[in-house]
Amino acid sequence: MPAKSPVIVDLKFIPEEVETALKGAFPDREVINRADAVHDDRDLSGIDYAVVWKSAPDLFDRAPDLKVVFSGGAGVDHVLTLPGLPEVPLVRFVDRSLTTRMSEWVAMQCLMHLRQHRTYEALAERREWRDLSQPEAADVTVGIMGMGVLGQDAARKLSVLGFKVVGWSRSKKAVEGIETFGGDELDAFLARTDFLVGLLPLTPETRGIFNAGLFAKLSRNGPFGAPVFINGGRGGSQNEADILNSLDAGLLHAASLDVFEQEPLSPVSRFWQMPNVYVTPHVAASSDVKALFRHVEQQIARLESGQPLQHVVDKLAGY
Amino acid sequence: MPAKSPVIVDLKFIPEEVETALKGAFPDREVINRADAVHDDRDLSGIDYAVVWKSAPDLFDRAPDLKVVFSGGAGVDHVLTLPGLPEVPLVRFVDRSLTTRMSEWVAMQCLMHLRQHRTYEALAERREWRDLSQPEAADVTVGIMGMGVLGQDAARKLSVLGFKVVGWSRSKKAVEGIETFGGDELDAFLARTDFLVGLLPLTPETRGIFNAGLFAKLSRNGPFGAPVFINGGRGGSQNEADILNSLDAGLLHAASLDVFEQEPLSPVSRFWQMPNVYVTPHVAASSDVKALFRHVEQQIARLESGQPLQHVVDKLAGY
Repeated sequence: MPAKSPVIVDLKFIPEEVETALKGAFPDREVINRADAVHDDRDLSGIDYAVVWKSAPDLFDRAPDLKVVFSGGAGVDHVLTLPGLPEVPLVRFVDRSLTTRMSEWVAMQCLMHLRQHRTYEALAERREWRDLSQPEAADVTVGIMGMGVLGQDAARKLSVLGFKVVGWSRSKKAVEGIETFGGDELDAFLARTDFLVGLLPLTPETRGIFNAGLFAKLSRNGPFGAPVFINGGRGGSQNEADILNSLDAGLLHAASLDVFEQEPLSPVSRFWQMPNVYVTPHVAASSDVKALFRHVEQQIARLESGQPLQHVVDKLAGY
Repeated sequence: MPAKSPVIVDLKFIPEEVETALKGAFPDREVINRADAVHDDRDLSGIDYAVVWKSAPDLFDRAPDLKVVFSGGAGVDHVLTLPGLPEVPLVRFVDRSLTTRMSEWVAMQCLMHLRQHRTYEALAERREWRDLSQPEAADVTVGIMGMGVLGQDAARKLSVLGFKVVGWSRSKKAVEGIETFGGDELDAFLARTDFLVGLLPLTPETRGIFNAGLFAKLSRNGPFGAPVFINGGRGGSQNEADILNSLDAGLLHAASLDVFEQEPLSPVSRFWQMPNVYVTPHVAASSDVKALFRHVEQQIARLESGQPLQHVVDKLAGY
């Protein structure tokens, strides 16, 4: 029996977390962690598997014989745009933990906007004891664009917290207890939405979709007058010049951005210190690296025992 | 038929919200809103009802014939300590909105501590793009002290968000899906708790219960090493000198305080600007004033039609 193929690991995560998670992972095969300089000149030909997140652009050049590419996250646009992506299955990371973490972030952002957290922080800064007129969750309709695994989980949790929730996706989804809208019903969905949550994959269709034209169609009947924009999906889906202009003009009340057109976000960006914008550095749903390796191990075991791979990406749709 | 008794309204809320909520309220009887100076010299004898929140201390002196006192909030300690409280039923405010609002606040505080919000805010202030090692909700056990209506609702919602949840109350409650502890099981409960949420009424038994001795019994095995203290109940339940010392010594990792021994919190308090403390000005579960008046109307209607009042406080137990 030939030795089992090594696994290439090329993950731009926190290096120590990858190291720790690799202890005990893939016990039956070699791991080539490209963060380790010892592998810099390693010949990667003949290797079957790679687990990647924002890999070096020469990966597919140097590893021409991959049979499966595993994405280190739920999104795959970072892989689809790498030069030389081979015609082999691309497997997304689907994981309870990743889904749960995204919903934590979305729920926290919705609650902070609802509960006027930044205003209370500013009052505390001035040591001022004063209460604000306070709407409750039931006064706010959260509209989620992208009703896949992440969107459905967030919808359910926001609904339990008391928010009204509506959902939109390209192909209309039936989700118990949530009013959903399909592709051509976008305007009706937007007219209902006070807090817009973006959980869309990045595809040619969604690039730049969060722009001034879309913001203008959002509800202005919510308790804060103007709508709030919350993006936990992909930065390429948003037009940041439009977001800034809309915030400046009061067409958006506030925003929460975990993703940006260019990452890392430039130190000169105005977003960092705007009083009504929460910025997080693409950490809304950081992958649990141990869970990622367990998932990759399971999929490799399926493949090597003749079962079909799961969570294979439709490269034409882009997700 | 004699004219229906007026209602005295003595609520230290936002005056404009009380004014607005009074429009259309109590259509069949006079309202004496003590915030309105026109009533300053009004004779309040012979009046049956008062709705109170932090009333002037001379209320019961001036209105000696009250048949029912309605609390403007879920807590009643502010009424029980007023001089001259008559031996008549005291009715607490129980309301969907009040419960939901408290759970919003508790969930937001738990999520902000979990997701290291203040650290990310400090990074944003420095325009620094960097991710932190991030536990998930399932890595944290939230322990709720006080498993009445508010505690049970918060427990259920935190559980849906992915937190492990345990509950303690003086008399042990059976709550589906939540592990609960009773009066003499406090130490076992504390040993399990990473984030401690206080939702206790203020009674002689709970006065000062959140002190250094109790904090020392909390779990130190959580993802942040030291425990987090979150109080949405009553300031009289906490020993603020102990909280400050515990935060300084690292025996507490962080805190969220909506209530204080003295309210308003003094402008010289250190709590206002501590990097690991969130301060809100007793707004976690601000009463919806319209809902409060609906509730009072319903209870008066019950009484006047011969039905028993609901939500009557046990003055000996203090809640």
